[in-house]
Amino acid sequence: MTGWIAVAGLGPGDEGLVTPEVSAMLAEASDVVGYIPYVARVALRAGLTAHPSDNRVELDRANLALNMAAEGRRVAVVSSGDPGVFAMAAAVFEALEARPDPAAFDIRVLPGITAMLAAAARLGAPLGHDFCAINLSDNLKPWDLIERRLRLAAQAGFAMAFYNPRSRSRPHQFARALDVLREECGGGRLISFARAVSTPEEALQTVTLAEAVPEMADMRTVVILGNPDTRRIGRFVYTPRVAG
Amino acid sequence: MTGWIAVAGLGPGDEGLVTPEVSAMLAEASDVVGYIPYVARVALRAGLTAHPSDNRVELDRANLALNMAAEGRRVAVVSSGDPGVFAMAAAVFEALEARPDPAAFDIRVLPGITAMLAAAARLGAPLGHDFCAINLSDNLKPWDLIERRLRLAAQAGFAMAFYNPRSRSRPHQFARALDVLREECGGGRLISFARAVSTPEEALQTVTLAEAVPEMADMRTVVILGNPDTRRIGRFVYTPRVAG
Repeated sequence: MTGWIAVAGLGPGDEGLVTPEVSAMLAEASDVVGYIPYVARVALRAGLTAHPSDNRVELDRANLALNMAAEGRRVAVVSSGDPGVFAMAAAVFEALEARPDPAAFDIRVLPGITAMLAAAARLGAPLGHDFCAINLSDNLKPWDLIERRLRLAAQAGFAMAFYNPRSRSRPHQFARALDVLREECGGGRLISFARAVSTPEEALQTVTLAEAVPEMADMRTVVILGNPDTRRIGRFVYTPRVAG
Repeated sequence: MTGWIAVAGLGPGDEGLVTPEVSAMLAEASDVVGYIPYVARVALRAGLTAHPSDNRVELDRANLALNMAAEGRRVAVVSSGDPGVFAMAAAVFEALEARPDPAAFDIRVLPGITAMLAAAARLGAPLGHDFCAINLSDNLKPWDLIERRLRLAAQAGFAMAFYNPRSRSRPHQFARALDVLREECGGGRLISFARAVSTPEEALQTVTLAEAVPEMADMRTVVILGNPDTRRIGRFVYTPRVAG
C-alpha cells in the first residue's frame, strides 16, 4: 500500500498554533477528511480534494480515509485541537480494528494544541498542578459514569477541563454537572469558560461555582475548573505547583 | 513598563512541533530564560541573551524574568512541552503574586505540544477517552497525596499520564506507584513508556502492568497507563471513545 493516513490536529483556530509538522503534511496530502468547519480551515490547492462531513459520523469518516489510503491516496484526517483528545484518532483506530488487514495501513498521528491547553494559556496557568480532562457528552458513555468521574476527580483534588460541556441536543446535563461539582467542591471554587480561544470570537470568563450558570458554555467552549488552591492574580487564573 | 514576558512551550523536541507563534515571539525577544537544555534549543542570534539555569530553581528564574521585564527587556521564559503543564507558567504567576505591582507586568503564555500528547500521538490514541495528568514528583506535594490520586483516578476509570516518573533523587517511588496501580487496576492493564519523543533518542515500549518495572522510566520518560478498555492494534495502542 503506497497511500497513507495522517491524523492531524489543527490547533484551536489561529494559524500561529498549527505546527510546522502538520503544515508540511498538508502540503503533501491528496485528500483532506474531517468535520465541515475543520476541513474549511485547510487552504485548498490544486491536487488536494476536500471531503467535509457532518458531526457525529466519525466512523464513516475514518472508513472513508482508510478506503482512500488503500487506493494509494495520501489522506489527511483533520481535527481541531489535538487529534488524540476527544477527536478523530481513536475513531480511526476503531475503524482500523474492524479491518482484516490493519497492519497494511500506513498511519501517523500528528499532535496539535488541544483546546484546554490553549484556554489554560490564555487564562494564565489553571492546569499548573495535577488535572484531568473529561468529555461531558453522553453520546458514547452513560451519564452516571460522568457523574461518578466528576465526584472522584473532585475528591482527588484535580483541576478539571471539560470538553463538549453543552450542546443543543443536551441542554440540561451541564446544569446537573455544575450541581454535582458544587456539592463536591463548594461554591467558592473558580471556574473558567473559554470560548473559541485564538479566534476572533474568543471570549473568556471566570466566576465562582456559585455564580456559574449553564448558559456560560456552548459547543465552542472549554470549561476549566480549578483545584482547591486555584486563585486569581489580576486578570489571570493560576493553580500553584505546591499542594497538600 | 515597556518590557514583556512570554512564557512559551517549545514542544517535546522536534523543530516541527514548535508553533509558529512561539517562533515569532523568539524572534522578537531580547532575553531567553529557562532550564539549561531548553535554552540550548533556542537558536542564539545577535541581540538575544541566554540565561540558562539549573533544575529546581523555577522561582529564581521567574523572578529574573520579572526583573528584566521591569527593566524594559523582552523576555522569553521557555519550557519543554507546554508551559502550563508541570512547567514554568505556574512558577511565573507564583513569583508575580509576591510582587507589589503584579498588574504592571505584560505577561503572555504561549501554549506548546506537551509530552503526553506527543507521546500519545506516537503510540496511537491511548488518551482517546477521559484521562488525567499526574506529576509523580513529590518535590512539591506529599507522596500520600500522590497515592490517593492514583487510587481515585483508577477508580474513576481514567487513562493516566505520568510526568516526572523517576529521577536519581527519587529512585524508589515509581516502584511504589506501580504497586499501587497494580492493586487498583490489576496486572493486565496496558502501560506505555515514551522516552524523548520526537528526538533522536526516542524510545517507545508498551507492556502490561504485571510486566512493568521501574527501570523502564527515567527523567526523560512520560508514562501513559491505559483505562480498562485500552488495547493494542498492531504496533498501536488506543483507547476507544465508547465506555460503560
